[in-house]
Amino acid sequence: MLKILRINTRTREYTFEDLGAYAGLGGRALTSRIVSQEVPAGIHPLSAANKLVLAGGILACTNAANSGRTSVGAKSPLTGGIKESNSGGQFAHKLPKLGLLAIVLEDKPEDGADFTTLLIKKDKVEFLDAKNLVGKLNYAAHDVLKAAYGDKVVTALVGPAGEQCLMTANIQFSDPDGRPSRSAGRGGLGAVMGSKKVKAIVLDPEAKDSVEPADGEKFKTARKRWLDILMGHPVTSQGLPTYGTAILINIINEAGALPTKNFRSGRFDGASKISGETMTETIKARKGAYKHGCHTGCVIQCSQVYNDKNGEYLTTGFEYETIWGFGANLLVDDLDDIAVMDRTCDEIGMDTIEMANTMAMAMEAGLVKWGDGKGVIELLKKVGTKDPLGRILGNGTDFTAKAFGVDRVPVVKNQALPAYDPRAVKGIGVTYCTTTQGADHTAGYAVCQNILKVGGDVNTLGKAGQVEISKNLQVATAAVDSLGLCLFVAFAVLDTADAVSVIADMVSGLTGKPYTADDVVALGVNCLKDELAFNKAAGFTAEHDQLPAFFRNEPLPPHNTVWDFTAEEMQAAKIA
Amino acid sequence: MLKILRINTRTREYTFEDLGAYAGLGGRALTSRIVSQEVPAGIHPLSAANKLVLAGGILACTNAANSGRTSVGAKSPLTGGIKESNSGGQFAHKLPKLGLLAIVLEDKPEDGADFTTLLIKKDKVEFLDAKNLVGKLNYAAHDVLKAAYGDKVVTALVGPAGEQCLMTANIQFSDPDGRPSRSAGRGGLGAVMGSKKVKAIVLDPEAKDSVEPADGEKFKTARKRWLDILMGHPVTSQGLPTYGTAILINIINEAGALPTKNFRSGRFDGASKISGETMTETIKARKGAYKHGCHTGCVIQCSQVYNDKNGEYLTTGFEYETIWGFGANLLVDDLDDIAVMDRTCDEIGMDTIEMANTMAMAMEAGLVKWGDGKGVIELLKKVGTKDPLGRILGNGTDFTAKAFGVDRVPVVKNQALPAYDPRAVKGIGVTYCTTTQGADHTAGYAVCQNILKVGGDVNTLGKAGQVEISKNLQVATAAVDSLGLCLFVAFAVLDTADAVSVIADMVSGLTGKPYTADDVVALGVNCLKDELAFNKAAGFTAEHDQLPAFFRNEPLPPHNTVWDFTAEEMQAAKIA
Repeated sequence: MLKILRINTRTREYTFEDLGAYAGLGGRALTSRIVSQEVPAGIHPLSAANKLVLAGGILACTNAANSGRTSVGAKSPLTGGIKESNSGGQFAHKLPKLGLLAIVLEDKPEDGADFTTLLIKKDKVEFLDAKNLVGKLNYAAHDVLKAAYGDKVVTALVGPAGEQCLMTANIQFSDPDGRPSRSAGRGGLGAVMGSKKVKAIVLDPEAKDSVEPADGEKFKTARKRWLDILMGHPVTSQGLPTYGTAILINIINEAGALPTKNFRSGRFDGASKISGETMTETIKARKGAYKHGCHTGCVIQCSQVYNDKNGEYLTTGFEYETIWGFGANLLVDDLDDIAVMDRTCDEIGMDTIEMANTMAMAMEAGLVKWGDGKGVIELLKKVGTKDPLGRILGNGTDFTAKAFGVDRVPVVKNQALPAYDPRAVKGIGVTYCTTTQGADHTAGYAVCQNILKVGGDVNTLGKAGQVEISKNLQVATAAVDSLGLCLFVAFAVLDTADAVSVIADMVSGLTGKPYTADDVVALGVNCLKDELAFNKAAGFTAEHDQLPAFFRNEPLPPHNTVWDFTAEEMQAAKIA
Repeated sequence: MLKILRINTRTREYTFEDLGAYAGLGGRALTSRIVSQEVPAGIHPLSAANKLVLAGGILACTNAANSGRTSVGAKSPLTGGIKESNSGGQFAHKLPKLGLLAIVLEDKPEDGADFTTLLIKKDKVEFLDAKNLVGKLNYAAHDVLKAAYGDKVVTALVGPAGEQCLMTANIQFSDPDGRPSRSAGRGGLGAVMGSKKVKAIVLDPEAKDSVEPADGEKFKTARKRWLDILMGHPVTSQGLPTYGTAILINIINEAGALPTKNFRSGRFDGASKISGETMTETIKARKGAYKHGCHTGCVIQCSQVYNDKNGEYLTTGFEYETIWGFGANLLVDDLDDIAVMDRTCDEIGMDTIEMANTMAMAMEAGLVKWGDGKGVIELLKKVGTKDPLGRILGNGTDFTAKAFGVDRVPVVKNQALPAYDPRAVKGIGVTYCTTTQGADHTAGYAVCQNILKVGGDVNTLGKAGQVEISKNLQVATAAVDSLGLCLFVAFAVLDTADAVSVIADMVSGLTGKPYTADDVVALGVNCLKDELAFNKAAGFTAEHDQLPAFFRNEPLPPHNTVWDFTAEEMQAAKIA
């Protein structure tokens, strides 16, 4: 049986605990249960009472396709609510090799304490002096750890942003190529790790535990069917592998929903220059890789290796969100500039969505001109330095807006909006508003039915059906995040009648106990209930489930639609 | 009949409106009614939809003693809730001479618009180019306006902090000596004025309207009795005139409730060096004035003129709160340094309570050493400059804490705590938590019964009776703020059986209509109802009615008490 490793970052005591009441949970369901049960909702997110939970999903101990996502949970410094931030990388699949389902960082060292590196071994934790890493950018820090522990070492790092406890700080996880390229991006969880004075978590490369499915035959059959489902759907087998998520640039631009110039238009003149098609051509010409997995066992391969003009590695995990945010939303149409911004965020350890919106605030404030990619790169590099401007920018969109008196601030629950304008994709707007996470597209990706026509079809400009779509997706997503599956499996799952049963069969095969499609749904529902309870106790009400007023007052070209849901109307998207 | 002047700051249209549905209101009751009725709760405080209301109280058009307080209302950029910020100065008594009860600034100019000076004349508003004032500190700006309009000109100004729309920005009002020394300090309302690109409001010195009481005899009789009540109470006739509010330094220190070193102790070793007694001696030695009124008609005279070592004017309105905040709470024991901080805040246009707590965060973050007064002055001077650190500090306590990762942040609803530790004065803690205003001592000054034993007697370290005391004071205060009376009349009112009836008689004499003590209470109750309704719509719940967790976890020396109210227990302090 897997265990939970609890580490007191002040006393340096640690325990390997049986799952106890947490048995049956994993991923987001586990992080959200632990946070909602053990972290008082009213505490300061950087105080000793907060806990940082890093967990693999229920299927992380298996070789099921795309089951290696890592969930990180805590009270969010950015939103003030509960947070589950989800990442690729090798962490989740490595935890079971240490006999672990999750690691919980508790308490915090005294003021002025030095940063530490936690070396997690089987049955042992070593607290190492992190002087050799402090102040380093993530790639350099990971190189130091590779030199010490081998190229296959699995790490979780905070960059300079996390060291400074800034609200855009993410946690970077190492990928299959030995790069710290995968981000638990949203909600500032790197600040929580930084507040606990943990610079790096290193999982012992020597650990080799394995978990055998209790019903090996059942698991094997289900696992095979699962692979067929993923490989049988055009989005997961062709679209995403070929163009990555950036395939969406042209699609969403065509739909008139690509937020441009801080959400002033749904179309960007420069879209074709930053599209997935252009990216793939560029990658091919520079001998990068346009198919690439973020963790071992990924068959969707939406990632890529993007080289610079000289054919040298520049970045990976170069996502639609990042390309939109630093591109269309800032009127930047140079894909290489955007790639440098992506890499810069990975290096300093910052959420790209939050930083892209932050840069829009900097443009509104006149700190840098619209479209000036080089200027944006210079601003990004200030974060994590001693420059106070870096402290402002590194604290995100609303913070930067407040610093400079900007009143057009695209945030919900203080978290910046992703790459779909809610006036032109109403369903995703319902998710932005009503998810426990603050504005978050992954929490209930209604773009499926609204634009991609996967799993349903709805008028993207209208209100009809959107609340129900968002609600169902929010439940399904919570389940997917708890199983440890990649969200993109949803494209295939939504279009395949037996998919949820097959997932249930994998769990049943693993545990040897009955598990049905209903149990999968219950997993998601109960996770959302935990999160909603925490947020309620933290003071969130229906009034917080709203977009900023400008979405209501400013029609969005080209469709000239406005956001027209009341907060009340959307409450049905939340689990009662 | 007095009118409301509405000014559209974008179109430059203006109207002089009859009171209509707002008849019978004044001061805070009027500002809160207008804001709650006309400003959507969900809007961005710096957006065009916010309104800035400046109003005299119901008695502002009379010569009743201490009836010249000005109420400023808006949605607060600092708290996100409704705000009434209350100031001395000449503004409120000058408004009726223009035939006005209130001025409402609406809408906002386009991005990049220049600042304007509003010259308010009888039946006319002139929009003047404010180039001659922009960037100037408040005393210099007021000097420019005195040169143009005479020494008696009455002004409302925003300093560089307000120009930058920072959340500590106040509005400075001119005093009887022709200095811009009085502050509508709390809640960042200077940022709202700045967002509307109004640098100064100038009330035409030529205006000479007067309002005759409808029942002159009744008013005169009541007014005389009112004066006798104020002059008959030792606090309002002796304590406050002689030592100013700083008389409280020794009293609150003795009580073990003087927050010291960011609320780590209730006693400050250097208290005697910054006490009211020391201040009065110093003022006498330097030939300042230890008795001084903040507005014409003030008989309490708690203000003073504080000169520097050379006998040159340094500051006035040098309050207990300011002396505590920059003194005990920062371990600074040099009264002259604190006086310079006070003046600096008045010059840049910043709330001293918010800035003092902000400096405590700067000390927690290591930007300046505990006790380093000169260092604090240097930091304060950064606000309003181009230095990004000034943008951080100028946005207040929680903002600065976030910028530097400080987790011990004394705020309620994002507004910093005043000068009474709630662990040792439990009643004021109830007010901090439950008032609509964010942490605010003036909203329900339970120090009266807890420490001063005015209007009652309660165990200051216990919970018994505190909720009821706070509730009653919150109602009474809302009424006092609506009448335009100085809060300090409460000392006399609480100890005088007929005081409320006498106040009602003044209103009745003024209007010629019946007005009873019950009407005074209803005035307060209805004002609070308006404010609570706004805050509810803005998303505030009982969960926001809490002190930061450290007040619950850290016993306060010397009494070693902790904060032990639940949010639920305190709800009875709010009007149902």
